[in-house]
Amino acid sequence: MKIGIVGMGLIGGSIYKDLKALGYDVTEGAAQDCDLVFVCTPMNKTLAVLDELETVVKPETIVADVCSLKEFVCQKPRRQVQPESACDSEASRAAQFRQRPYRFVPTHPMAGDTKPGFENSREGMFQGAKWVVCSECPPELREIIEKLGATAVFMDADEHDRAAAMVSHMPMVIAKALLLAADDRAKSIAGRGFADMTRLAATHNEMASDMIHMNAENIRTALLQLYSAIDDVISDG
Amino acid sequence: MKIGIVGMGLIGGSIYKDLKALGYDVTEGAAQDCDLVFVCTPMNKTLAVLDELETVVKPETIVADVCSLKEFVCQKPRRQVQPESACDSEASRAAQFRQRPYRFVPTHPMAGDTKPGFENSREGMFQGAKWVVCSECPPELREIIEKLGATAVFMDADEHDRAAAMVSHMPMVIAKALLLAADDRAKSIAGRGFADMTRLAATHNEMASDMIHMNAENIRTALLQLYSAIDDVISDG
Repeated sequence: MKIGIVGMGLIGGSIYKDLKALGYDVTEGAAQDCDLVFVCTPMNKTLAVLDELETVVKPETIVADVCSLKEFVCQKPRRQVQPESACDSEASRAAQFRQRPYRFVPTHPMAGDTKPGFENSREGMFQGAKWVVCSECPPELREIIEKLGATAVFMDADEHDRAAAMVSHMPMVIAKALLLAADDRAKSIAGRGFADMTRLAATHNEMASDMIHMNAENIRTALLQLYSAIDDVISDG
Repeated sequence: MKIGIVGMGLIGGSIYKDLKALGYDVTEGAAQDCDLVFVCTPMNKTLAVLDELETVVKPETIVADVCSLKEFVCQKPRRQVQPESACDSEASRAAQFRQRPYRFVPTHPMAGDTKPGFENSREGMFQGAKWVVCSECPPELREIIEKLGATAVFMDADEHDRAAAMVSHMPMVIAKALLLAADDRAKSIAGRGFADMTRLAATHNEMASDMIHMNAENIRTALLQLYSAIDDVISDG
């Protein structure tokens, strides 16, 4: 099996290093003879790469992207979306997704680091992590996810994006806001708890900005749920 | 120097173990011949112990409490508070504090654990921590704070309570609220970031409840500052 990796950053680099260590035939970029391609570019470049691959790889090639949001990479272009009434069954929901001329699998490994780039990539990055898969998963891909030490979790793209807002994107917003809200005197007595609560604030700016803009609606909903839970904690406390 | 420790829980136990290892004459409880007494009971019992010690220790004994809020342990009983106009100078602010018939030093070591009790106490708990002191600090006490590996930071009681709301109590409320707001499906894909952001939710219930009730006003103010910062992060993001 020949594996290509487009985007040799934190995630792409970590997949590359693990697969190399496991003895796979893995190279940077995507060639016509690849059996599997991981698309690991920054989120705002993912669609362009997926489009470009349409003229590069074979119909039987598996192409899996790894970016942090899944609905936008699945959707058909707007002009092709079916009228609302036709979207009730599972089959018609699947029909909403853009068909690619290769075996496209939208995925999201729930692992990473606040520091981006190949220089921060490492073997073992995915050990013990969940790896969300938003369509059927070809067995070859599933085997690789497991060899990387992760567990495949199946979830619809829209459910993934809501869940990611709650457990990842909104927490990052809160971490950044905590650092803004606390003045230097308060920070001067902060202990380990505050350090834990603000660690995500160091998320790389391009990544953070993509998440905040591209998942804005779900983050807003998650914040409202959080504010309501805060009221509960304070009145039950 | 003879040192007594009232309240042999997480903090009291950790002070005890360190001082014992350092060769100090340290015992549980407070006796008439103690030169220094640490009051390490749960917050809601601190005032009762400080009152009780008035009939136990000598006038020259240093009594330092370690609880998480400082304004309430410093204040004179309400009936003795001076009229507002008399409170402008440093001297008259000091006069607001209740005078104890011993050398009372309100302090707060910014260290701990979510699990309470002597069984979780340990040597080295205060290594690298800030230890807030809300009055003048007798050199004997300062030496001990430093021997425990901490750094004394001087702060007025009211400033401490506002800062603690921002960097400790409000973050704990948010951690608890995050766990409430996220459903099980969302939690099933949570990674290290969410674990970091919710660690403080495990804070022992009695401790958490004391903080939430006894510092409610400052927590509410800190939350409003956070909400405003969240809006800034989202619009600047």
